[in-house]
Amino acid sequence: MGSDTDLPVMSEAVKTLQEFGIPFEVEVTSAHRSPQRTHEYAHTAAERGLKVIIVGAGGASHLAGVVAAETILPVIAVPVVTTPLGGLDALYSTVQMPGGIPVGVMAVDKPGARNAAIYAAEILATADGALAERLRRHKEELARSVEEKSARVKQQFESP
Amino acid sequence: MGSDTDLPVMSEAVKTLQEFGIPFEVEVTSAHRSPQRTHEYAHTAAERGLKVIIVGAGGASHLAGVVAAETILPVIAVPVVTTPLGGLDALYSTVQMPGGIPVGVMAVDKPGARNAAIYAAEILATADGALAERLRRHKEELARSVEEKSARVKQQFESP
Amino acid sequence: MGSDTDLPVMSEAVKTLQEFGIPFEVEVTSAHRSPQRTHEYAHTAAERGLKVIIVGAGGASHLAGVVAAETILPVIAVPVVTTPLGGLDALYSTVQMPGGIPVGVMAVDKPGARNAAIYAAEILATADGALAERLRRHKEELARSVEEKSARVKQQFESP
Amino acid sequence: MGSDTDLPVMSEAVKTLQEFGIPFEVEVTSAHRSPQRTHEYAHTAAERGLKVIIVGAGGASHLAGVVAAETILPVIAVPVVTTPLGGLDALYSTVQMPGGIPVGVMAVDKPGARNAAIYAAEILATADGALAERLRRHKEELARSVEEKSARVKQQFESP
Amino acid sequence: MGSDTDLPVMSEAVKTLQEFGIPFEVEVTSAHRSPQRTHEYAHTAAERGLKVIIVGAGGASHLAGVVAAETILPVIAVPVVTTPLGGLDALYSTVQMPGGIPVGVMAVDKPGARNAAIYAAEILATADGALAERLRRHKEELARSVEEKSARVKQQFESP
Amino acid sequence: MGSDTDLPVMSEAVKTLQEFGIPFEVEVTSAHRSPQRTHEYAHTAAERGLKVIIVGAGGASHLAGVVAAETILPVIAVPVVTTPLGGLDALYSTVQMPGGIPVGVMAVDKPGARNAAIYAAEILATADGALAERLRRHKEELARSVEEKSARVKQQFESP
Amino acid sequence: MGSDTDLPVMSEAVKTLQEFGIPFEVEVTSAHRSPQRTHEYAHTAAERGLKVIIVGAGGASHLAGVVAAETILPVIAVPVVTTPLGGLDALYSTVQMPGGIPVGVMAVDKPGARNAAIYAAEILATADGALAERLRRHKEELARSVEEKSARVKQQFESP
Amino acid sequence: MGSDTDLPVMSEAVKTLQEFGIPFEVEVTSAHRSPQRTHEYAHTAAERGLKVIIVGAGGASHLAGVVAAETILPVIAVPVVTTPLGGLDALYSTVQMPGGIPVGVMAVDKPGARNAAIYAAEILATADGALAERLRRHKEELARSVEEKSARVKQQFESP
Repeated sequence: MGSDTDLPVMSEAVKTLQEFGIPFEVEVTSAHRSPQRTHEYAHTAAERGLKVIIVGAGGASHLAGVVAAETILPVIAVPVVTTPLGGLDALYSTVQMPGGIPVGVMAVDKPGARNAAIYAAEILATADGALAERLRRHKEELARSVEEKSARVKQQFESP
Repeated sequence: MGSDTDLPVMSEAVKTLQEFGIPFEVEVTSAHRSPQRTHEYAHTAAERGLKVIIVGAGGASHLAGVVAAETILPVIAVPVVTTPLGGLDALYSTVQMPGGIPVGVMAVDKPGARNAAIYAAEILATADGALAERLRRHKEELARSVEEKSARVKQQFESP
Repeated sequence: MGSDTDLPVMSEAVKTLQEFGIPFEVEVTSAHRSPQRTHEYAHTAAERGLKVIIVGAGGASHLAGVVAAETILPVIAVPVVTTPLGGLDALYSTVQMPGGIPVGVMAVDKPGARNAAIYAAEILATADGALAERLRRHKEELARSVEEKSARVKQQFESP
Repeated sequence: MGSDTDLPVMSEAVKTLQEFGIPFEVEVTSAHRSPQRTHEYAHTAAERGLKVIIVGAGGASHLAGVVAAETILPVIAVPVVTTPLGGLDALYSTVQMPGGIPVGVMAVDKPGARNAAIYAAEILATADGALAERLRRHKEELARSVEEKSARVKQQFESP
Repeated sequence: MGSDTDLPVMSEAVKTLQEFGIPFEVEVTSAHRSPQRTHEYAHTAAERGLKVIIVGAGGASHLAGVVAAETILPVIAVPVVTTPLGGLDALYSTVQMPGGIPVGVMAVDKPGARNAAIYAAEILATADGALAERLRRHKEELARSVEEKSARVKQQFESP
Repeated sequence: MGSDTDLPVMSEAVKTLQEFGIPFEVEVTSAHRSPQRTHEYAHTAAERGLKVIIVGAGGASHLAGVVAAETILPVIAVPVVTTPLGGLDALYSTVQMPGGIPVGVMAVDKPGARNAAIYAAEILATADGALAERLRRHKEELARSVEEKSARVKQQFESP
Repeated sequence: MGSDTDLPVMSEAVKTLQEFGIPFEVEVTSAHRSPQRTHEYAHTAAERGLKVIIVGAGGASHLAGVVAAETILPVIAVPVVTTPLGGLDALYSTVQMPGGIPVGVMAVDKPGARNAAIYAAEILATADGALAERLRRHKEELARSVEEKSARVKQQFESP
Repeated sequence: MGSDTDLPVMSEAVKTLQEFGIPFEVEVTSAHRSPQRTHEYAHTAAERGLKVIIVGAGGASHLAGVVAAETILPVIAVPVVTTPLGGLDALYSTVQMPGGIPVGVMAVDKPGARNAAIYAAEILATADGALAERLRRHKEELARSVEEKSARVKQQFESP
């Protein structure tokens, strides 16, 4: 993540990786304030054995693009709302990457952070049957949880 | 893709997959006009051996979300500009997925379609060393091509 | 509605249906988290005797479109504000439906939820004279209530 | 429609009503340039036997709201792009109706005009079984047409 | 104003008219909820001796346009923020009037309400020398007040 | 107007002033490129006998505000589309004037330029009965012209 | 700054100038409320020995442009969020300056105010080696501070 | 500039630097496609004797930020319109830089490119009296050119 102020959002990703039992490392590094550290981190990520990189950053959010420039690992980006422009600055500066350097962008803020972790799981599951099985169960639980919520809501209303 | 009118944009993805030697299938199916076909396609994609699904659609672009709802494969989305709202409709309706069902969104139109294919290659390369090597060479070629363009542009200008 | 978190908004629709004496059922079902349940619900709605379907959802709000894809009943949508994009994501992803699959979109949040119920009443009233009469009286009450408010506000001000 | 310049867009609605065999009348009347005529038109619509009113207008698009203020018939609105604001002016000024006076809004421009007619058909079909049957067949044709397009597109590509 | 909920904003206009000693009347009337009353009000405004009409309304803010359609008096509009779209709905639906029916639009919310009253004063002052003189003094007071604020702020800071 | 490139838009205002027989002067002056000339022009406008000032400008459109700062005459602004931001830059920088210095803003581009002239006529007509009469006739012609257009459009369509 | 209400934002610039030991003066003056004072201030700024002017203002933010029109000193602008339009009005009315009269625009609100001071330091450092050295040290401290934050965040998480 | 496709816009900057007699070098380098070259270029710019860096780039426009991260020279950015998002992506991703790393942003496209060069001249002129004199003459020519345009436009119109 680009700053420790992104932590309340990005900790959703951490919690979700833990749910799925996926090992991870957490790093704060900035495209603008610590550029050399960022480049070195991204440049050596693949050889250090990382498989996927999740990036959360706000404002003129260059971190995901700068990381993607230095690695062939899939980069997943979470636009974080940190300015009065309501996340559009982070969204546009993350999603509009030029041809050649892809970044996979999630929703802004917490739903995006949770989804970044699930998307990482989906990527890893293309070569990991056990993880694929956990994702399938997660999907079933989502459906079940909707059914339970529906039952609870229905109880509150009586049609005349 | 959601309609054959998305083909001029999405054929960028096809060309790029061919460049990287990645086998693929092409399908037109609509979240709204052919919902059952779409669900069946997405629901059976994993068991038919697909590893990644690239979706291109415009307007109220529900196709990527509807596909992601039915599969645990990573879904990559390309928002296509098909209305006077300049692609914001396709972008917002693709990127703002709720927690639990991720979609990895690329840039609007052709750069996004090219990047969708490269991103698919990056995902597959997490378990395919030869493809990873091709991605590394592609990155080097991008850098070389920028240098050549710079040399050509520099020749046009003489500082006073 | 797509989630029980939409309830504070969508209960405006419920209250208004009750005001007009229109029988209804309430359901929580998600285009993304419980796709099969959603399809079955929409697919069988007409044969179960439903006449109109009101859908409330936020973010990349695909629920109304997904329901409209499976039924020929009129679908009325309420874009709910659930993200930092201020409802534009829900609005664009609901209103920009492709040719062939209409959705009738109301204002975002509570005024839209109330209007969804009145619009449903207007649709039903095309074949129900008693309901039409209630709608006519409702219009008269609206006009009267404006007159009363005007009188109250006028009392507060004295022109010099 | 608010102006004869809206005709290229709104004739999509006319063609679609003709496809479904729905009788209609066409009127140009403006909320701003011919207010009295507009009010009279809307005020007497129900008693003249109209069942649904489709309104197309652009810019500060008040026509649908002004018509809805005077009738209890369902009003369907098509925001038409007539200014450099790309249809957002027409969309916002149509969709954000206050509680009490609903308007059902379609997509901007031609897809919206086509959908307005289909939506009118769906409303009428709530009390017209033959029309409901035509709508069901239309849905099947949409699905078939997607399949045919898919087959044509597939023929163009060979996976390596 | 379109609703008594616009009062906290529009009372700025009232206060400012009182400051300038301009007689006025206050009315709540809605383009949508009390259309006939609104038309009659606007239609008879000139003959009742009104010179200028100030309109405040939010959302799909049709009131200023509907009033302007019925009168040749200058109409001044204040877009009021009443929805999650941040006033853009009220702004666009007020400012984008079609050729033939002008409305003079002010800033959103309170500064706009204050300015509406000053603008009314400027219009009346084109034929009222005493009012023109008050406006000139108001301009001088504005300049003086900025100077005083500047002096206060300067005292807080010492350059190193 | 701020530049001679605004002339194709602003000549709509000139034509309309001529239609209504209102004497006028045309000036090109820039808030940024010729600030002193602009200030002098605005500062002396009232004493030179001007009654209303119409300003057209694009981009960061400061001209109307800068003129309004120097005069107590009513200033009418036309946001002109001169940049890729589609007129939003000109609209926002014209309409969001701070409390104390009003500008009456019209629609972007040609409809706004035409309306600026009609609005000027409405302002002058508050003290000119003959001009008021011409405005009343103009309103009647607008209504008649809509009726004629409606008749022509109706002829093209036959209901089945 | 255009108003003393901009002080909570603009005091970030003051603090930062103090950090870098750059002498400064603070002034409140408005493009609209005190135009003559503003013009005189800007017109005489260079001859009074100023090197750079930082401007903070919100809404239809004309101050930076009006100052830039009167001086050849570099003008740095901070768009301040003072209205419900979320800073877009201040941003667009500051950044879209016409060819010939540049303004260097920073981010909205506090980060922009801090950056305005650092940018002023960078401009002055083009001819001041000691200041350049301080900027280099500031950059190193930024990088160090990111490292420390990263260490703190890493301690909170343990990968499973 | 980030790509040779930015040349038609950025050559405005080159022409303007030539007008002012300012020596320059032209470089194409990409934050994403040639990151190492970009970093080296920016990192060594000050010691190679550059005083100011002008950056033009479009889309998710990270180049200015990435350059600013590596140098204490003032960086001037021109957002170039290269995507269907109309330059908002380039604008937001350039202007919303985090505190600590300023970039001075100009208008989108050609006016911004011309202004970038003038702004560079203003920065250099803080320590170069001859250049300051040229800037003063340029300002006078701008004012004169407006006067000439005004005279030409005035000749076209005769007030009745």
